[in-house]
Amino acid sequence: MNYLGIDVGGTNIKGGVVSEAGEIVREASRPTPAGRDAEEVTDAIAAVIRELAAGETLGGVGLGCPGTVDDERGEVVCAFNLGMIHYDLRAALKARTGFSIRLGNDANVAALAESAVGAARGAQSAVILTLGTGLGCGVVLGGRMLTGYTGAASELGHMVIVEGGAPCSCGRRGCFEAYASATALIRMTEEEMARCPESLMHALARESGRVDGRTAFTARERGDAAAARVVDAYVRHLAVGVANVVNIFFPEVIAFSGGVANQGEALLAPLQEQVRLQEFGGAYVSRHTRLVSCTLGYRAGVIGAALLAKQE
Amino acid sequence: MNYLGIDVGGTNIKGGVVSEAGEIVREASRPTPAGRDAEEVTDAIAAVIRELAAGETLGGVGLGCPGTVDDERGEVVCAFNLGMIHYDLRAALKARTGFSIRLGNDANVAALAESAVGAARGAQSAVILTLGTGLGCGVVLGGRMLTGYTGAASELGHMVIVEGGAPCSCGRRGCFEAYASATALIRMTEEEMARCPESLMHALARESGRVDGRTAFTARERGDAAAARVVDAYVRHLAVGVANVVNIFFPEVIAFSGGVANQGEALLAPLQEQVRLQEFGGAYVSRHTRLVSCTLGYRAGVIGAALLAKQE
Repeated sequence: MNYLGIDVGGTNIKGGVVSEAGEIVREASRPTPAGRDAEEVTDAIAAVIRELAAGETLGGVGLGCPGTVDDERGEVVCAFNLGMIHYDLRAALKARTGFSIRLGNDANVAALAESAVGAARGAQSAVILTLGTGLGCGVVLGGRMLTGYTGAASELGHMVIVEGGAPCSCGRRGCFEAYASATALIRMTEEEMARCPESLMHALARESGRVDGRTAFTARERGDAAAARVVDAYVRHLAVGVANVVNIFFPEVIAFSGGVANQGEALLAPLQEQVRLQEFGGAYVSRHTRLVSCTLGYRAGVIGAALLAKQE
Repeated sequence: MNYLGIDVGGTNIKGGVVSEAGEIVREASRPTPAGRDAEEVTDAIAAVIRELAAGETLGGVGLGCPGTVDDERGEVVCAFNLGMIHYDLRAALKARTGFSIRLGNDANVAALAESAVGAARGAQSAVILTLGTGLGCGVVLGGRMLTGYTGAASELGHMVIVEGGAPCSCGRRGCFEAYASATALIRMTEEEMARCPESLMHALARESGRVDGRTAFTARERGDAAAARVVDAYVRHLAVGVANVVNIFFPEVIAFSGGVANQGEALLAPLQEQVRLQEFGGAYVSRHTRLVSCTLGYRAGVIGAALLAKQE
């Protein structure tokens, strides 16, 4: 039987009919209404569901969205991008489509997909870290998303690693996100560029029209010393957070997605080396957490939402 | 049916026959052999098992010990206090007693006990933090200990909260343990005492013969300003780590044991207040993690080991 997965983002609402094997059979998409009005967003979600469900026999419908989601209560606790605060999304969609849908945080359902049919397929436990604008995270243990008492768990990006450090969007200081997201990398790149007017990074930024997560990595590859300092500092911070994740969960796999993760081995090789030195009991443990790249890309959200619908 | 639980510590090997309801029916104990020879320690464990098992019909035997334990392989990966490195403890005890025992880390099995029949009874998820010489931790999710891929998980004490901070016994710098254990509190107390020769803490330390985890709390209660600074700094660090634990697991309960936890509400009230301010989405989440004191004391290890034997 097929399942329907919906991935609600700030820009688009993507949907897909997904096979039991986790493959997308059919897709549809609509822009997320710009007004951030919960009812309008729900109307648009319902339209995507109706479009894809027409003529299908579905085993269920699942949905992933940003923010804090309480699947037990069927409620979006808070998702500012969607204008939803304590919003009973399950009831609202049931009224519009007839389906009683399962709800998850977008990073969590993406992690479920990577764990079931992507980078961490077959692993008994996996943590997925998305190094993008923020630092998204999902934890899957024994095939289940870690959602905690309220649905708000797995917020590893909001684990402080530098007490009193750089301000984070969540209100704390020194969060993992404030040191390891693409946004943090760009901040570090700009700071180093300001210190080093002769750095190659200036020319690269001019060429591409902006400083981004690639600027420092590319300049370092071409031998720029200032860029090497940026990358080293970034990887050092990332390693501290990733080693924390290892010591907390000791997952079989940690998989990386998001812009910075496109660096592949240029990022993962030095990271693996530093994490090994910091993992608890590392000298004696014979099985180590594997650090890999995610494989499902943008499809992870839709596939994971569908897989969530499949779970008890 | 009754189960047998063994708690192997650096000083004593404690055992207990435990009822299905988690009550200790009968106890026995022997000193841990001082030489830290794995075979001698195993002989002593076997003697405690034989003493308690005589005449009993047991559903199983479980054991908790310090260090990294791999229950799947039946192996103690490393427990320096017991002289065990990659030691096949299950086979060694099977040969001596006939029982095939379940193995767990001591903090993890104690958490299992607090979760099943102690401070977190009835909670869907719980984290137990022991503020002692080190910072011990166990995580129980849906009635199961979080042990990870290798048995080494749940080492929340070795989560860095201050990158580049105080050195930790594990080799990293700035671990939660280095800021929130009783040892860390004593270090902060001594540092502040050195700065403030007029502090009441000096008189209290002379009275009790040493600086300990109570010195600063007691002096603060009597109005000592230097002691108040120590307690404030300690609680601030502890709150950072505890808020991390909330954001990572969002457990229903976090329960505290160990010397510092004896301060009860003098510790938990300000801690709760600071953690609330730092939890992710705290303003919108309607259910919060409860911070409480553990209730089983030294019995948690024995009871938890027995409960482990009861699990599939």
